[in-house]
Amino acid sequence: MSEPVVAVDAMGGDHAPEAIVAGAVAAMRQGGLQVVLVGRPGQIRPLLAARGMLGAIRLVAAEDSVAMDEGALASWRRPRSSIAIACQLVHLGQASAVMSAGSTGAIVATARLRLRNLPGVGRPGLAVALPTRPTPTVLIDAGAIADPRPETLVQFAQLGSAYAEVAFGIASPRVGLLSIGAEPGKGNKMVRRAHELLAAESQHGGVPVRFTGNVEGGDLLAGKADVVVAEGFAGNVALKAMEGTAAFTAAQFRAALAGSPRSRLGALLARRQLRELRDRFDPETYGGAALLGLERTVIIAHGAATERGAAAACRLAADLAAGNVVERIRERLGPHRTGFLRRS
Amino acid sequence: MSEPVVAVDAMGGDHAPEAIVAGAVAAMRQGGLQVVLVGRPGQIRPLLAARGMLGAIRLVAAEDSVAMDEGALASWRRPRSSIAIACQLVHLGQASAVMSAGSTGAIVATARLRLRNLPGVGRPGLAVALPTRPTPTVLIDAGAIADPRPETLVQFAQLGSAYAEVAFGIASPRVGLLSIGAEPGKGNKMVRRAHELLAAESQHGGVPVRFTGNVEGGDLLAGKADVVVAEGFAGNVALKAMEGTAAFTAAQFRAALAGSPRSRLGALLARRQLRELRDRFDPETYGGAALLGLERTVIIAHGAATERGAAAACRLAADLAAGNVVERIRERLGPHRTGFLRRS
Repeated sequence: MSEPVVAVDAMGGDHAPEAIVAGAVAAMRQGGLQVVLVGRPGQIRPLLAARGMLGAIRLVAAEDSVAMDEGALASWRRPRSSIAIACQLVHLGQASAVMSAGSTGAIVATARLRLRNLPGVGRPGLAVALPTRPTPTVLIDAGAIADPRPETLVQFAQLGSAYAEVAFGIASPRVGLLSIGAEPGKGNKMVRRAHELLAAESQHGGVPVRFTGNVEGGDLLAGKADVVVAEGFAGNVALKAMEGTAAFTAAQFRAALAGSPRSRLGALLARRQLRELRDRFDPETYGGAALLGLERTVIIAHGAATERGAAAACRLAADLAAGNVVERIRERLGPHRTGFLRRS
Repeated sequence: MSEPVVAVDAMGGDHAPEAIVAGAVAAMRQGGLQVVLVGRPGQIRPLLAARGMLGAIRLVAAEDSVAMDEGALASWRRPRSSIAIACQLVHLGQASAVMSAGSTGAIVATARLRLRNLPGVGRPGLAVALPTRPTPTVLIDAGAIADPRPETLVQFAQLGSAYAEVAFGIASPRVGLLSIGAEPGKGNKMVRRAHELLAAESQHGGVPVRFTGNVEGGDLLAGKADVVVAEGFAGNVALKAMEGTAAFTAAQFRAALAGSPRSRLGALLARRQLRELRDRFDPETYGGAALLGLERTVIIAHGAATERGAAAACRLAADLAAGNVVERIRERLGPHRTGFLRRS
């Protein structure tokens, strides 16, 4: 099989294009993927030249780009933006996945406009990997939709299960539903209805969802489920609350260790362990969020992504493409009324 | 002014009645409050006798109690439970506040059944203090209502502001709205409408809400607002996600420090600082959640509360009563159509 080609939005992100180009080059040098850079050639060429990669990486021109503070409307306002053209490359079959560190709202809206939904998927969902052990936990939706229908959450269960299978090799992933109590009757109206549907869904479907019931916010890092399905509002709040709390707690630990000469010496002695821990909690290690349910996968890296984060996001995009997550989603969703769109 | 009297549900909580009675005795010995214990005399009397407090603390008999796995229906099924009778004591003016470590759902439902709403309050909200510095951040609602109306969130802004003023001495607290983006248009339908109402509300009312806009999950521990108003589903998910992440991160730090002989020595040298930090993150230090908007305040301690947690919850109940949080809520809400219920 040929190496997957990742269309990289070189202009999206706080540190674009420098960090993005550097990350794409680093990922390609590690091997296993090809990259197409999309953006302003006048800015990208010198960056490639400085790395001795001019001519070694395909470059597709896009003179427009979406600013980090632009939202969903940018998908209409900027039809020739770097993210729009990256999506177009994928739609035309010239690349297998998209990677961007731009504005999440703009990327989601642009991808929805440019890429087809998979049959049986009403709306794409945003999946992130939480740093549980031994395997990560997939949280979906982390904020692609604020007011989903209950049926959409059942689809997200399938998208998240396919992600867990392909990215982490988890056979028959356990699926939990994010709510505010363990019992089926707990939650808001939408989530209670989604619980009913998920409990029924496990009886049928292309590949049945292995639904194990509600999980609470405190269970997200406890490894109680391999996939946690959330409505996007609560999912986004939970994800950001976890990131904020991990950063806050780590800062408090560092301050505590700096609190006395004895504790500073202690921190020095433990510095290797503390550094490993920092890396593990660093969102850059995980590559970013995956927008699933479209004809091709779109990886959204953190807006503040550095070279390391951009490289990890490129690898995640390539891994999901190589593992054929899109085909796995088709299989899980099973035959659908619009089945004529399916490829054999 | 006489000392506030706290009606303590001696039978609620994983470690009831032992830990609850011990905590109530400890809080009373520290001074500044009186306690009435409500529960089974046959179980409570020996615990008081062992502490030399038999006869020194008022005891009100309640032979029934609510199990930790019972929910809201217990409010109807168990009219003579210890939590029901504790609420009744407060309603009759024999105590100023209620403290229970029982099932949150059962306590909220029982309190709503037994205690009047304050004028202008449609539903009580659950407020918790997050460990920010220099002053804590009040999160309301942490899960009393799963499907609130937007108007309810405006009331919660007033309840939370009164809590921040009385408990933490914050003049003119800044109020943020929990959403999934900083801009007013971000969020689900309910939260977007609440944003409009809060932005308008700051122009009028008994005491205006000082609304400073949306905050995100990652801002909850950043001290961007003194009060964060949330719809109860996302508020509960966020609170539990933060608790879970703080525990997870702390466990990872401990494991990292135990990872080698050098790092173990380091941890030993830093043990005082690490112990202080653990106490700061311990929910028991904060006393519990406050159900606000009723004629009297109900404090809900953590179900796993030990003696220390129960004592802190009793003190929080007494502090809010002594600071007259209920009167402050009346003032903030201002004259209301049902104003004949207001006391002068």
